[in-house]
Amino acid sequence: MASGTSAISTSAGTIDRSQVEQIVRQVALEYLGRGKSGTAPVLTVQASSRHMHVCREDMDILFGPGTELTVDRPLFQDGFYAAKETVTIVGPRSRLISNLRILGPMRPRSQVELAFTDAIMLGFKDIPVRLSGDIDGTPGAVIIGPKGVVELKEGVIRAAIHVHMNPAEAAHFGVAKGDTMKLRIGGAAGVTFNNVHVRIDPASKLNVHMDTDEANACGFHLTKDIELFK
Amino acid sequence: MASGTSAISTSAGTIDRSQVEQIVRQVALEYLGRGKSGTAPVLTVQASSRHMHVCREDMDILFGPGTELTVDRPLFQDGFYAAKETVTIVGPRSRLISNLRILGPMRPRSQVELAFTDAIMLGFKDIPVRLSGDIDGTPGAVIIGPKGVVELKEGVIRAAIHVHMNPAEAAHFGVAKGDTMKLRIGGAAGVTFNNVHVRIDPASKLNVHMDTDEANACGFHLTKDIELFK
Repeated sequence: MASGTSAISTSAGTIDRSQVEQIVRQVALEYLGRGKSGTAPVLTVQASSRHMHVCREDMDILFGPGTELTVDRPLFQDGFYAAKETVTIVGPRSRLISNLRILGPMRPRSQVELAFTDAIMLGFKDIPVRLSGDIDGTPGAVIIGPKGVVELKEGVIRAAIHVHMNPAEAAHFGVAKGDTMKLRIGGAAGVTFNNVHVRIDPASKLNVHMDTDEANACGFHLTKDIELFK
Repeated sequence: MASGTSAISTSAGTIDRSQVEQIVRQVALEYLGRGKSGTAPVLTVQASSRHMHVCREDMDILFGPGTELTVDRPLFQDGFYAAKETVTIVGPRSRLISNLRILGPMRPRSQVELAFTDAIMLGFKDIPVRLSGDIDGTPGAVIIGPKGVVELKEGVIRAAIHVHMNPAEAAHFGVAKGDTMKLRIGGAAGVTFNNVHVRIDPASKLNVHMDTDEANACGFHLTKDIELFK
């Protein structure tokens, strides 16, 4: 358990659900080493608003053959970005949400990540909580782009809260791929997320991703008392 | 810590944000006694959608002099109800939410309880997390009723997650007024709420109230693995 956290910087934005921003708030903390010498990894926590990942084939239909995503804004993890391209998603009760932002780059399979609040708004009864990419047997939706319509047979999920880290950071925390950690958010609306999935990649920077429901439940932008631990 | 929970009954509705329902889901669990004989209290967890409490003076302005609230649906706690009356709330950026349900009976001071998601939608930067009734220094809002408009100088809060219980239930858990407890929700989106405020009243039935953001973050309707403990 990493204790004795101290904030080194904070930058806060606002969630504006109508704009479908992917990253809306960020808190940077320094985690003090647990009796070790040397600098501990810096933890950032981010809220992901609803968004879509698109495959090459669906991109062709939605935006036209051979079109490419264009970068609107880089994301925290190198190489990933919010695209200028947006679509409209139609749920099972013919309700829709427009301006659903696409995140790049393209992926092998299209996928839509919603908060429960979004799913309820669209008329889904329940959407499964999954790690990104694990979409077999999940609900589908109709996606409308400027050049065409795609009926996703599956791919609508609520993304499970997770933490990206590189192998050195994983070693610092003593965790391995497939482990879960806990994220405790202090403050008036104190919450501990008990199942934070660990994702390890050499290119990753330490970064927790939660959705807007989780962000709004815990109000993490209101506190610097945040700790990530096994 | 109450362990070994077992579900004895479950009734689940759906959250429909457009309808401003106060109670949208309910899970009933039996908490096994901690080595004691006799039946342990039954815990219910409920999500409160955004709503308003109104004072006599504001009722006169919004709905007409001498008007009374009318019962639409009784709430879980005896004597409380969702009223047929609704209002429109206008936030600081002139955004509004209509069909804001009033809960009865009337109170000494008017108060609006919003989830963060609602507050953001209305353009509030941050609303304070408070126990119901503790509204000094909180933001205000314009409230529009069928017969008039009230400008609340204060009273807009996010209700702190809390548990109602009677003195016998408090004795069972070993807690007193002013204490906080923890509520652990299992399942895929496992969350522990660390600051569940204890409210004790002889007329109360054991019942946790959280808001829609908290309910959507933890998905408590998806699991029976729920425990309340000190």
